[in-house]
Amino acid sequence: MPKEGITPRSQDYSQWYLDIVEKAVLADYSAVRGCMVIRPHGYAIWELIERELDNRIKATGHVNAYFPLFIPMSFLQKEAEHVEGFAPEVAVVTHGGGEQLAEPLVVRPTSEAIIGHSFAKWIKSWRDLPLLINQWANVVRWEMRTRPFLRTLEFLWQEGHTAHATEAEAEEETLRILHEVYADFAENVMAIPVLRGRKTDKEKFAGALRTYAIEAMMQDGRALQAGTSHNLGQNFARAFEIMYQTPDNRQEYVWTTSWGVSTRLIGALIMAHSDDEGLVLPPKLAPVQVVIVPIYKSDAERSAVLECCHRLKAELGGTFRTKLDDRDEVTPGFKFNEWEVRGVPVRVEVGPRDVQQATVALARRDVPGREGKRFVPQDGLVDEVRQLLDSIQQSLFERALRFREEHTVQVSSFEELKQAVETGFASAYWAGSTEDEDMVQAETRATIRVIPFEQPEKAGKCVLTGKETTQQVIFARAY
Amino acid sequence: MPKEGITPRSQDYSQWYLDIVEKAVLADYSAVRGCMVIRPHGYAIWELIERELDNRIKATGHVNAYFPLFIPMSFLQKEAEHVEGFAPEVAVVTHGGGEQLAEPLVVRPTSEAIIGHSFAKWIKSWRDLPLLINQWANVVRWEMRTRPFLRTLEFLWQEGHTAHATEAEAEEETLRILHEVYADFAENVMAIPVLRGRKTDKEKFAGALRTYAIEAMMQDGRALQAGTSHNLGQNFARAFEIMYQTPDNRQEYVWTTSWGVSTRLIGALIMAHSDDEGLVLPPKLAPVQVVIVPIYKSDAERSAVLECCHRLKAELGGTFRTKLDDRDEVTPGFKFNEWEVRGVPVRVEVGPRDVQQATVALARRDVPGREGKRFVPQDGLVDEVRQLLDSIQQSLFERALRFREEHTVQVSSFEELKQAVETGFASAYWAGSTEDEDMVQAETRATIRVIPFEQPEKAGKCVLTGKETTQQVIFARAY
Repeated sequence: MPKEGITPRSQDYSQWYLDIVEKAVLADYSAVRGCMVIRPHGYAIWELIERELDNRIKATGHVNAYFPLFIPMSFLQKEAEHVEGFAPEVAVVTHGGGEQLAEPLVVRPTSEAIIGHSFAKWIKSWRDLPLLINQWANVVRWEMRTRPFLRTLEFLWQEGHTAHATEAEAEEETLRILHEVYADFAENVMAIPVLRGRKTDKEKFAGALRTYAIEAMMQDGRALQAGTSHNLGQNFARAFEIMYQTPDNRQEYVWTTSWGVSTRLIGALIMAHSDDEGLVLPPKLAPVQVVIVPIYKSDAERSAVLECCHRLKAELGGTFRTKLDDRDEVTPGFKFNEWEVRGVPVRVEVGPRDVQQATVALARRDVPGREGKRFVPQDGLVDEVRQLLDSIQQSLFERALRFREEHTVQVSSFEELKQAVETGFASAYWAGSTEDEDMVQAETRATIRVIPFEQPEKAGKCVLTGKETTQQVIFARAY
Repeated sequence: MPKEGITPRSQDYSQWYLDIVEKAVLADYSAVRGCMVIRPHGYAIWELIERELDNRIKATGHVNAYFPLFIPMSFLQKEAEHVEGFAPEVAVVTHGGGEQLAEPLVVRPTSEAIIGHSFAKWIKSWRDLPLLINQWANVVRWEMRTRPFLRTLEFLWQEGHTAHATEAEAEEETLRILHEVYADFAENVMAIPVLRGRKTDKEKFAGALRTYAIEAMMQDGRALQAGTSHNLGQNFARAFEIMYQTPDNRQEYVWTTSWGVSTRLIGALIMAHSDDEGLVLPPKLAPVQVVIVPIYKSDAERSAVLECCHRLKAELGGTFRTKLDDRDEVTPGFKFNEWEVRGVPVRVEVGPRDVQQATVALARRDVPGREGKRFVPQDGLVDEVRQLLDSIQQSLFERALRFREEHTVQVSSFEELKQAVETGFASAYWAGSTEDEDMVQAETRATIRVIPFEQPEKAGKCVLTGKETTQQVIFARAY
């Protein structure tokens, strides 16, 4: 049953998204165009994302550091492609302490330039390599069309920056991050299946040699880039003079990488799993995993039910992020609704009969209504809830995977491509140029999201040019 | 024995501080004036500070959120004292996306203004109160004279912002944060004793009704403000129209508070505990608590010693942040030196004789040289190290407390005050005006750091005016 204030997806997907953001109290508009306020419920999701990613980033040998928010304009200009890509969308500080600055400062849109400057100071010898740094920070890109989480002027992210002695090591790092950190996190924590592969030159990071990405499908069939990992080659090493002495005393440029994911992952979470009743969260990223709602009429019932609820809260709270909603001023129905909209994966209902029979009603958010509800004994509830949370986590992933498979079409003509990207991904043989890509985008609003690592064994004909090729790509409209 | 590259404190305290920051690899200068790079070792300390504070902030009922970096200039101007205090030191964004902005944006120096705007939207009724929010963020203040951690253009901090129905609740919140969060953290985690009290009008936050603070003494006798908590009265509620409906349907302004601590705490840590050999860290904030250093000559010794070290690393690593320094290319002496400079509280040395006798040498960083080193059995090492870390934590606190007591003088004349603030704190009866405070500062470079909560029972004569008063204050030169 659709919720008050939530536009059904089928009616207006874009408005549905905004309604979820508002009704699940995830974010709010601010007084500054394009900048959002991340409200506590949204920020709690970000804290869980941060913790999970930070663990993975550290487990792969990286350490955190912090670099300045401001970048001298001249630094941005040192790498030619980089400045071309970012200069049009920077915010510029021209005054500080009441005076005009001699050199304007750019609010970081990404930190390759400012970090490159430090790397050049820190790296002297092959012994200093690899240098594996990560930063959690805010960045600013002056976007014209913004949407909460998906595209905002300011956003929060992590950005990894590493330097290596050889091209092979830099490439290995770039791919390790994509697979072991980003894809693993997306699939096993966010419950979102992702396609892994390389970006075309048209879509790669400004200043990179190669950009790799993970791409996810949203429920409207559009793609969302959920993480990118860049092999920067020696481009930034040359621009910032980052050199090291080899064991045989030569001076060489290092090879660098950078990689990042941002608060737009919260947008991906919302759009991958939620429904017309509100937010749906994978249990691993739910700030509240279990909510206990007491049901009673009389005062006598109230005290017996609440006593039972407090006991269950103590039991479940030791293992899961658990909330007991013991508000007196609102009805159980109101509470069910509120926690459904906010995406709590499991609801435990306790009424007078449950107290007598030592049972509870267990409702799963991902299967709304009666179908997702059953009565279970209080005895063994922790195990029961654990299995249920695991099952929800798994089921969300499988549902998203099935959806992607059902909305991915192998196309063999441009007409088929055009049609396929109306509702999902088009997998196509491709031998076109960057100009051809531009043309396809102009005609279909779809771009090549990724050249998947998994490629077919046999050749086929390019969907546009008809040329024989073994390369398949994924076309889609993207967020 | 003083370390190479570290100026002794007695010779030049200020240079000693900068040497520690550099040699312990805590921070580095950046290409932007007054902005530092927090290097991984420094950032790891900040992560521990964050975790400890975040736990305390959440345990007292607050939730985290995130508000925009940019504040419209007009917002800052809504509270008269606030703009007067902060306008001279803001960084201003005048251009975005290649165009001049219609209204300049200020990079937040603090977030009362932008958060006040959201509070006005979110708070409707007494049911929405109290609203207890915290934010972890970067802020920018255009300081002219900067020093790593202590005073930088950009710094990292947490800022709490709360709204309450009554003045009494706001006051209670302001004091709870000071005592339960800040003072508890400073004393029990940072091992730094603090004086708690109120600021004079001259020193209070721009826009506050009352500012409370904790003040610590550094090893040169100067004061460092380690945390402030402000009762903002209804000043910001009036400026931003933050109103609520009372249970009896009246519209009232809320009462707000704000409070913060920043990366300057790392400066406090350094200056409170470190010595001429390098950084000294309280175990609770040491990124590496125990370092294991193998000592061997022959290959046979090497393999026996390393085997033992790996076993001890596995044992100790389950309980403490433990590092095994198994580098081959540097000597044990080099390693001892490096970890001493970086402030690792406990060093475990393992040589061939230790392997034979099932012992290790245990050295404590806070007692350098032979005095702090002894041999203990490998059996029971986890317990032994736990006790040693506890003892170091305790001992650092006691040493700092003793130092403060020895450098605090009860003064009864202006001459005595002048002399006392040369080397420490002057405790003095005070009945002067703000102009009198200005005069004292001009003459002595000391300010009233705090009016302690603990006040004497009997009256005395004001150190400047000679007027009878029961109020004692602490004068000191401050960072």
